[in-house]
Amino acid sequence: MCANAEPLAVPFRRAHPSVSQGPAPRSLAIGLIGPGQVGQAFLRQVRAAQGTLRRTRGVDLHMVAALGRQRMWWDVDDAQWQAAPDRTQVWRPSDPVAFLDHVQASGSQAVLVDCSASDAVPDQYAHWLHRGIHVVTPNKRAGSGPLHRWEAIQAASRHGGHFRYEATVGAGLPVVQTLRDLLDTGDDLHTIEGMLSGTLAWLCYHHDGSHPFSEWVRQAHTLGYTEPDPRDDLSGMDVARKLVILAREAGWALSLNDVQVESLVPSELANVEKEMFFKRLPELDAAMADRLAQADAQGGVLRHVASLDPQGRARVRLQVVPADHAFAHSRQTDNVVQFTTRRYADNPLVIQGPGAGADVTAAGIFADVLRLVDRPSPMA
Amino acid sequence: MCANAEPLAVPFRRAHPSVSQGPAPRSLAIGLIGPGQVGQAFLRQVRAAQGTLRRTRGVDLHMVAALGRQRMWWDVDDAQWQAAPDRTQVWRPSDPVAFLDHVQASGSQAVLVDCSASDAVPDQYAHWLHRGIHVVTPNKRAGSGPLHRWEAIQAASRHGGHFRYEATVGAGLPVVQTLRDLLDTGDDLHTIEGMLSGTLAWLCYHHDGSHPFSEWVRQAHTLGYTEPDPRDDLSGMDVARKLVILAREAGWALSLNDVQVESLVPSELANVEKEMFFKRLPELDAAMADRLAQADAQGGVLRHVASLDPQGRARVRLQVVPADHAFAHSRQTDNVVQFTTRRYADNPLVIQGPGAGADVTAAGIFADVLRLVDRPSPMA
Repeated sequence: MCANAEPLAVPFRRAHPSVSQGPAPRSLAIGLIGPGQVGQAFLRQVRAAQGTLRRTRGVDLHMVAALGRQRMWWDVDDAQWQAAPDRTQVWRPSDPVAFLDHVQASGSQAVLVDCSASDAVPDQYAHWLHRGIHVVTPNKRAGSGPLHRWEAIQAASRHGGHFRYEATVGAGLPVVQTLRDLLDTGDDLHTIEGMLSGTLAWLCYHHDGSHPFSEWVRQAHTLGYTEPDPRDDLSGMDVARKLVILAREAGWALSLNDVQVESLVPSELANVEKEMFFKRLPELDAAMADRLAQADAQGGVLRHVASLDPQGRARVRLQVVPADHAFAHSRQTDNVVQFTTRRYADNPLVIQGPGAGADVTAAGIFADVLRLVDRPSPMA
Repeated sequence: MCANAEPLAVPFRRAHPSVSQGPAPRSLAIGLIGPGQVGQAFLRQVRAAQGTLRRTRGVDLHMVAALGRQRMWWDVDDAQWQAAPDRTQVWRPSDPVAFLDHVQASGSQAVLVDCSASDAVPDQYAHWLHRGIHVVTPNKRAGSGPLHRWEAIQAASRHGGHFRYEATVGAGLPVVQTLRDLLDTGDDLHTIEGMLSGTLAWLCYHHDGSHPFSEWVRQAHTLGYTEPDPRDDLSGMDVARKLVILAREAGWALSLNDVQVESLVPSELANVEKEMFFKRLPELDAAMADRLAQADAQGGVLRHVASLDPQGRARVRLQVVPADHAFAHSRQTDNVVQFTTRRYADNPLVIQGPGAGADVTAAGIFADVLRLVDRPSPMA
């Protein structure tokens, strides 16, 4: 494969396989930041799909490097990868500057995929974009963090690399791109309503009065459906972050503290130790039983809903939805997002499916990465 | 705005507005074929959105020409357009060759948008793509017509212009792109199931036994929900065309006659005059009442479903779906498409919403057109 590779001045630059027929493939060098569960899944997906993509789409993807907090690797070709799946012999101490230079030098187009949950990495996005490097991320921090940082990133992306973040909302579900298409084609957004937490969807789905709410929380925790500390789900803050991302996409200069968030965690339990929280979990039950009874009385069902209204008001709360509402039929841990617009006024546009998990999140990242290269070649 | 335009050698080339700051916008010349209802809606949407797109996305769209069967126009700028909305003074006799040359000469990137329902226009796609011109279409003929033509178009699109056809299935709903992303990122498709006809969805939704089926057909016809001849809907052939498009996208070399289609039109009514068909419409009622009774007996509901199974078997038929199935909750004329894959195995990925109408179809075309220019600039 490397027989035709020219000697290159740039150190560590990978030889691209020669293409015997057809136009030169569109090539993209990928640097992964945060090789955790999602990062690893993305890496596996790229390695598995790259042969087919080269053949069928003329797209040449190269995983050139991965950067962790303590260590990194680069230039591990497919053969080495197969031979050393745990990569113990390829790691070297982390050096973010060298990592970045290496990724950029590895192709005429490069993308950094930020799979960290760090708030410090997004501080670099604007800089990278200015350098012409694309950024793709499932990290919600940029989209829901400080507005001035978000605006700097957006400004940089207009003049340099592209910034994509489909996987921040609904993982692999096509939510952000669909919203962008609606707006770019001149539709007017009326409302966005979403069930954006698989955990809270599951809890609402099961909480039917047969058992106290706290038991469902414990079961969800045991099944691995919640964060290690379930308050990270119950607080609604993760959902609020997703809503801020969608609201900004829709043109509203919102921040997290503009969202009216109803936490399911009573304030007196918000700051106790995790063990104490689990012990006192039944303190949630009476209020939740009341809410359920209210929903029953109205002939509806209780759902955890994020909404953005036409005035840009963003809310995250338990809500009674009518029995014929799309949210009433949600399945298990499904996410559901519903866009009501001028064109989709009577019946909204609805996207539904699993909205969390390493594989579908990685697929959302991967689709964003493909959008960077799945583009026309210049006219003949 | 035209002060900086250079004198150009190419006749009829439109002057692009100068951009005072930021990178040069990515520019695209658009030629419209078939200025009917959908084509006109597309044209209106582009004219309404182009200013915003230039500002926010750095994308410069130019509607440079439109070609009808008898007449065409080109080089009508925005001011002329506003002044002469019916364009009577700008039409000239159709000349497809001059039209094509003009569109291609009008920008470094050009796209032909085929809004005709013609089977002859798709014969030209491969030729245009080879010339480096992109093709975007809601016309189902290419995707569901002769396989050899489809393959020639696909081959041409790998080496020249891009070919996109999101609006052929579900109008503006992101169906084709979602399927493509699933497959490109290495997911394995298990099944596609779809309610792909708004008309048949509406008929199934309302046909509850309170009135004979034929009365619902008459009402749908009166409301404009059916084709002028309702047999074009009831035959299931339009749905079969959409299924062929999705099956080919999924890698199956299917043609229309490979699809097992259950027509709701009895064979003895298939070829009678339209007036006679309407007169004899009640002949459909007994069979439909039977089907409904069977569904009731099974505790399910009757839906018109297109399906592609893991063996590539394509079917279009009335089907009993369980009461908790996504299709049981479909609203009015909604389309619903559900992808079950390796990653979306337990819960499928579902897309739902209105799947017909000039505005949403035009929006689907428009999103495809944006995909041609919404792409990275080269690295700085």
